[in-house]
Amino acid sequence: MFSEVLNPRFCETDGLGHINNTVVAQWFEGARDPIFQWFTPDLNMNNWKLILAKTTVEFLAELQYGAKVEIKTYISRIGGSSFDIYQEAWQEGKRSASGTAVMVHYCYQEKSAKKLPDTIKNTMQQHLIELDTIKA
Amino acid sequence: MFSEVLNPRFCETDGLGHINNTVVAQWFEGARDPIFQWFTPDLNMNNWKLILAKTTVEFLAELQYGAKVEIKTYISRIGGSSFDIYQEAWQEGKRSASGTAVMVHYCYQEKSAKKLPDTIKNTMQQHLIELDTIKA
Amino acid sequence: MFSEVLNPRFCETDGLGHINNTVVAQWFEGARDPIFQWFTPDLNMNNWKLILAKTTVEFLAELQYGAKVEIKTYISRIGGSSFDIYQEAWQEGKRSASGTAVMVHYCYQEKSAKKLPDTIKNTMQQHLIELDTIKA
Amino acid sequence: MFSEVLNPRFCETDGLGHINNTVVAQWFEGARDPIFQWFTPDLNMNNWKLILAKTTVEFLAELQYGAKVEIKTYISRIGGSSFDIYQEAWQEGKRSASGTAVMVHYCYQEKSAKKLPDTIKNTMQQHLIELDTIKA
Repeated sequence: MFSEVLNPRFCETDGLGHINNTVVAQWFEGARDPIFQWFTPDLNMNNWKLILAKTTVEFLAELQYGAKVEIKTYISRIGGSSFDIYQEAWQEGKRSASGTAVMVHYCYQEKSAKKLPDTIKNTMQQHLIELDTIKA
Repeated sequence: MFSEVLNPRFCETDGLGHINNTVVAQWFEGARDPIFQWFTPDLNMNNWKLILAKTTVEFLAELQYGAKVEIKTYISRIGGSSFDIYQEAWQEGKRSASGTAVMVHYCYQEKSAKKLPDTIKNTMQQHLIELDTIKA
Repeated sequence: MFSEVLNPRFCETDGLGHINNTVVAQWFEGARDPIFQWFTPDLNMNNWKLILAKTTVEFLAELQYGAKVEIKTYISRIGGSSFDIYQEAWQEGKRSASGTAVMVHYCYQEKSAKKLPDTIKNTMQQHLIELDTIKA
Repeated sequence: MFSEVLNPRFCETDGLGHINNTVVAQWFEGARDPIFQWFTPDLNMNNWKLILAKTTVEFLAELQYGAKVEIKTYISRIGGSSFDIYQEAWQEGKRSASGTAVMVHYCYQEKSAKKLPDTIKNTMQQHLIELDTIKA
């Protein structure tokens, strides 16, 4: 599991007084950096090897401006060329949002999916979580 | 079906040269205005009656800066107090992203879900789409 | 003068109930497209020829969600290699924000400023505004 | 001086491969929290006492994804009811952007500017910087 702590920004609230839902997707993407680095260690975008197929976000409680948020990042599925990243946003002891990103190992030159390298699959194992467990 | 046409903004691209995935969620939320108005005709946020439970976005093709995008908005499920909004982003004749937002009719004072009014349910019927049909 | 009309998005508000100040900079950048096209007609970012040196935004009145906004875009200074773009955001008959972007004609390969081509300078003349006039 | 360190997010880049200019305004606003707390200690937006009159951002060098950024925040002017916040974004030892926000002590109920309290003015003194000095 990877953990990142961030301060919600004033501009990330919306007129209902809480963090806007679209911001959670930005936080989650930001917290995927350690996983991006498995594929592109220096995060050079000219050498990018992942493409996003699908995202899901569940909104469980209002997220507030004025208190730190922890983003927890796990691997929840390891496929042949694709894998799932499961993430949660916690604030003041409460799981307030969760989400899954379906990522594909991808070659932008050939425009085709590629098998996940075994070395990366092994690393993924160390961050693997059973969703049934974590949500219990 | 509601249709909104927008110009992707320079700042909505990312380092891979396309529209960033988190922007699609913003476009989709923006294009929900006509549905928000069923519940709050003047869009006054002090009188808001909806809460978002879940969003899903599927990324089907790269969205580009420099060409207009049409957002199509449908109702894809009518429940007791909740309903689904299904949306698509089209660019140059191609369905490039789709997504579903699960909305709940909600009272922010009482912090509880409310039944959908029949008049609004009737209006929803006119925008209802069978997802099997549209994706075919 | 170029004019673009947009719908403020729900997610562009902040907890004070109005459009967040940082969004105005995004609107202004979005409305610079016709000027970007003088330098890169197809808006291909691999062939970009401008760099931003400075932006200023004045907040004159609260911008609201729920009413269209018109962005007006002018040229306010034509220099040797740089020029100024002056912009205003109007809502319901009121100039609610204004701003200036200092742009430089720039070669990203050579990392150096370039003289403005005469043909573009001539086009700029047609969109030139005296700031003393417009603010009167 | 206040210091905040942040990780640039993937979604904060644009198609030119660097951090988009409009993001710097978001970072700067986020890093103003300690100053907002002088006026609203719990950061409750229902009790907000500041309004933004003007922002300026100078872009000095490209900001990159993949390396931490430090935002430094100072007071650069103390007026009667208004004051200036001066900020810088540093990355890898380089001042890459700077900016000034003109803030006004403001009563949202009365819609009028208010004198700065002496206690806050005293606190501001401890964070005051001569711009000629810092830019030297």
